[in-house]
Amino acid sequence: MEYAAIYHQPFSSYAYPYDGRTLHIKIRTKKGDADEVRLIWGDPYEYAKDGRWLKAEQQMKKIAATEAHDYWFIEVVPPHRRLQYAFALRGAGQEDVFYGSSGTCPYNEKTLAAIHHYFKFPFVHEVDAFQAPEWVKSTIWYQIFPERFANGREDLSPENALPWGSKDPGVHDFFGGDLQGIIDKLDYLEDLGVSGIYLTPIFSAPSNHKYDTLDYYSIDPHFGDPELFRTLVDELHRRGMRIMLDAVFNHIGSASPQWQDVVKNGERSRYKDWFHIHSFPVEEGRYDTFAFTPDMPKLNTANPDVQSYLLDIALYWIREFDIDGWRLDVANEVDHAFWKTFRKAVSAEKPDVYILGEIWHSAEPWLRGDEFHAVMNYPFTEPMIAYFADRAILPSEMAHRINAHLMNGMQQVNEAMFNLLDSHDTGRILTRCRHDEKKVRSLLAFMFAQTGSPCIYYGTEIGLDGGHDPLCRKCMVWEEDKQNKEMLAFMKRLIALRKRENALFTYGRLEWNVLDDQRNFISFSRVDGDKKLIFFFHQGSEVRRISLQDDVEAHQKIYDAWTEKPLHHTDVIDIHPGEFFILGAV
Amino acid sequence: MEYAAIYHQPFSSYAYPYDGRTLHIKIRTKKGDADEVRLIWGDPYEYAKDGRWLKAEQQMKKIAATEAHDYWFIEVVPPHRRLQYAFALRGAGQEDVFYGSSGTCPYNEKTLAAIHHYFKFPFVHEVDAFQAPEWVKSTIWYQIFPERFANGREDLSPENALPWGSKDPGVHDFFGGDLQGIIDKLDYLEDLGVSGIYLTPIFSAPSNHKYDTLDYYSIDPHFGDPELFRTLVDELHRRGMRIMLDAVFNHIGSASPQWQDVVKNGERSRYKDWFHIHSFPVEEGRYDTFAFTPDMPKLNTANPDVQSYLLDIALYWIREFDIDGWRLDVANEVDHAFWKTFRKAVSAEKPDVYILGEIWHSAEPWLRGDEFHAVMNYPFTEPMIAYFADRAILPSEMAHRINAHLMNGMQQVNEAMFNLLDSHDTGRILTRCRHDEKKVRSLLAFMFAQTGSPCIYYGTEIGLDGGHDPLCRKCMVWEEDKQNKEMLAFMKRLIALRKRENALFTYGRLEWNVLDDQRNFISFSRVDGDKKLIFFFHQGSEVRRISLQDDVEAHQKIYDAWTEKPLHHTDVIDIHPGEFFILGAV
Repeated sequence: MEYAAIYHQPFSSYAYPYDGRTLHIKIRTKKGDADEVRLIWGDPYEYAKDGRWLKAEQQMKKIAATEAHDYWFIEVVPPHRRLQYAFALRGAGQEDVFYGSSGTCPYNEKTLAAIHHYFKFPFVHEVDAFQAPEWVKSTIWYQIFPERFANGREDLSPENALPWGSKDPGVHDFFGGDLQGIIDKLDYLEDLGVSGIYLTPIFSAPSNHKYDTLDYYSIDPHFGDPELFRTLVDELHRRGMRIMLDAVFNHIGSASPQWQDVVKNGERSRYKDWFHIHSFPVEEGRYDTFAFTPDMPKLNTANPDVQSYLLDIALYWIREFDIDGWRLDVANEVDHAFWKTFRKAVSAEKPDVYILGEIWHSAEPWLRGDEFHAVMNYPFTEPMIAYFADRAILPSEMAHRINAHLMNGMQQVNEAMFNLLDSHDTGRILTRCRHDEKKVRSLLAFMFAQTGSPCIYYGTEIGLDGGHDPLCRKCMVWEEDKQNKEMLAFMKRLIALRKRENALFTYGRLEWNVLDDQRNFISFSRVDGDKKLIFFFHQGSEVRRISLQDDVEAHQKIYDAWTEKPLHHTDVIDIHPGEFFILGAV
Repeated sequence: MEYAAIYHQPFSSYAYPYDGRTLHIKIRTKKGDADEVRLIWGDPYEYAKDGRWLKAEQQMKKIAATEAHDYWFIEVVPPHRRLQYAFALRGAGQEDVFYGSSGTCPYNEKTLAAIHHYFKFPFVHEVDAFQAPEWVKSTIWYQIFPERFANGREDLSPENALPWGSKDPGVHDFFGGDLQGIIDKLDYLEDLGVSGIYLTPIFSAPSNHKYDTLDYYSIDPHFGDPELFRTLVDELHRRGMRIMLDAVFNHIGSASPQWQDVVKNGERSRYKDWFHIHSFPVEEGRYDTFAFTPDMPKLNTANPDVQSYLLDIALYWIREFDIDGWRLDVANEVDHAFWKTFRKAVSAEKPDVYILGEIWHSAEPWLRGDEFHAVMNYPFTEPMIAYFADRAILPSEMAHRINAHLMNGMQQVNEAMFNLLDSHDTGRILTRCRHDEKKVRSLLAFMFAQTGSPCIYYGTEIGLDGGHDPLCRKCMVWEEDKQNKEMLAFMKRLIALRKRENALFTYGRLEWNVLDDQRNFISFSRVDGDKKLIFFFHQGSEVRRISLQDDVEAHQKIYDAWTEKPLHHTDVIDIHPGEFFILGAV
């Protein structure tokens, strides 16, 4: 056994409270090394009369493998909420090994009796358990870039607005989308089945994307006004839908009064400590910015005045308009201390607000329970795209990377993740799939089958395409004859399936059944007790025949989960290249 | 190379801000696997004109080894405080391997260009850097168990107090120690050289140890009163010494008015939510306690009323009496959320207060910068005791375990650690060494030579002995003829050495030179630039001769760091079994 590869860490995704009573414990071993792993555990204060510490051993379950590692899992409910524990590992034909806080030791009486060799989870506190709003786990998101979704009020459009959809968007083009446009399309969205709307910024700002905020308290006049926004929120809520806004707190627009004051008054400006200014007068290169973008000066979020300012904004839109979530732009470049304060303030105002950080990389430090509820799950996006769209990796590599990412997170973090294939910051999925619609459908079905709250980017459902920014921000197509009706029908059905089986997709175990690298074929199940959905994704080149009875128990009722039609155990199904199939079993 | 053993995690002790500009980056490899490790890094937004991301490579240094692993380290100061990075690893005679956020990849142009393979440290914020009070790093602590240190006011002694030192203490004995006793001995302590006093609880409580608090606002009447305590603090401060009190916030005494109210009024008590009560009336087994001790009911620190109550206590003793630190009893069983609030409140009241948690195990989750400044460093104590006192492990194992523990912490966490050999909760070091005084001296010298703030337990300096609680709580011996004068002289000299060379002991590199398992001989250096202290600890059975020129540069001035006498490069030194020697070089 490769001792150097064993990893465990209390108070991390390897040992955490799932709720106020239950602990999740994981350990990582080198792939293929261990045949059996047991948790040795007890209450740290419970001793037998003979002075021996009272403990028990319980089998752990291998729940995932990556290219290099196996992951073992167990759920325990310590009776007094206190846990002292270690691991017993056994390789094929080998002696047991003890793994504890001082690493590996021989598994024997002496080791087992030495309390200092054990890990501790001293007490399970509900308040320390990561918890996301319950509603998020059953939400299907729809991301809207307001300038390009629908123009409902021609009178609000910028003077230089181009005719709707008249050309591919350039970096500085305006087309006149607005909030009335969104309100007008709520029936469409409700019919589509989505249950949460995420709007990129809507506050006053010069650009079409509005990430260069001028005034966080006003709706951009080209988008509407407070009353129109209130109508939008109310209409959404009336339909049982949620709304999330985009908060740009890492930086502010250079046109903002605060920055303009610094430009004008230099060191005498009352806002000089609102930013990270190296020297005066402020000129390019003499102050911190987002990336190297001079018109987006970085805010100093360690300054209490800036904190009050931003927190008041965050609370204002919740208190006055009852929004349901904040998506935080460039969240990874703002300090953790600020986000902890933000989380406290926002959750106190509305306990079930969803806080979503824009973080592209692995985001464990922000997801410990006292900052965000989720991040934009690009580390999950990447392996999906690399496999389906780019054909850059094989099925096993995709599965390994997804497993590694899932294992990196606490279970309840994964349950509330914001899953996406594309956004205003990436090329559109149809374009990334080189307009292969079958592939887009497989990708969508694959994403919807995974744990986490899925988001589709406006227009995906009617076949909107576009490369990287600004091309991914095309005007939505509303002429029905120009919409991809097949894709729309597919999307509705997929959303309906997700809603029907949401508990299984959120809480069900993920089991990879087939990862056929040679023939580009994947099968996995989502399992909860007797209930199962088995997915088959065929990206190979020859028809693949599957015998249904291979994957289900003889006593189970089985059905085509897509059409909801019953199937027989003796049925065989031919899956054609590029297609997928979903077998249901109860 | 064993890929499965490689480990790195951003925002952990593997990648953290050391200050507002500097990042520390570490990576772990299987022992002996890598000959060279390089950090590949750049600013995430800095691209060359040809569109390629701008990056550089820099050698990392192997700074520690454990039984299973090597640790590699580098300090970087990213010009824009943003870091995107990965690692290049090379085994002997092997090709470079790239290690990044998706694990290992071939080291080639394609990998190097793929941004999603890199780790991110998005922005270095000073406010997120762990920072401990500066004064702690040069403090030598002296722990006092007040009931047993000195009786300065016979009139305050409990009625049933036994004559001072008349017998070995039993669990329920009183001997009459008090605050006046401590005040009377401040000259003694100043002369000894210690610079911080840590008192176990002094608030009203029935027991001799006072961990069963009755009233957190009053000094136990057998110890003194507020004025006497104020005199103690003032006298300490006048001498430039610090004082730390013990806060028992995990539980309260069953004699406290709050618990008595619950006992009396049951469900109608206004304090019923102050505790974790399973059912009424409250009887043993129906409420959570510390361990299984019914007279120490556990406080519900998630209750805002309890929080206000405890925070007010914490602030009261700082505000009214200007104490310098809080040692937090059973800190690991209280929720993190409370400690974060505690840290904020206490640091706001007095920014350089030291917050020390009682945690016996690895305590990384409490030492991320927003809870404690340090913990009682028992994981460091254990390998020292196991080697010197118990002879249970060999030199290499002790060094490996110390290395593993150091690598587990951020550098600035290690710098402010509370190092100790014994306390009121363990057997005394003299007894653990079976009264081998040489061994005690070696252990003390070894501990004082390590990074972290050392603490001695009252009486160690005059040869007080005693097994586990209650025997480790004997009355201090004040009759000079009964004090171990040799130990006292040793202790003074060791403290003086520590003070003289404190910067080297705090910030200097630790380099193990010799770990001779066969002959039980250890040598290590503390190094800062040209300056060096080289320690030799001889626990073997035959005289060991060392040639001084082997360990120093020809141009260096060398001296006996213990006697401060100069030495010659040609000198040889005989180190006798059980002894140690310290060579200085500048």
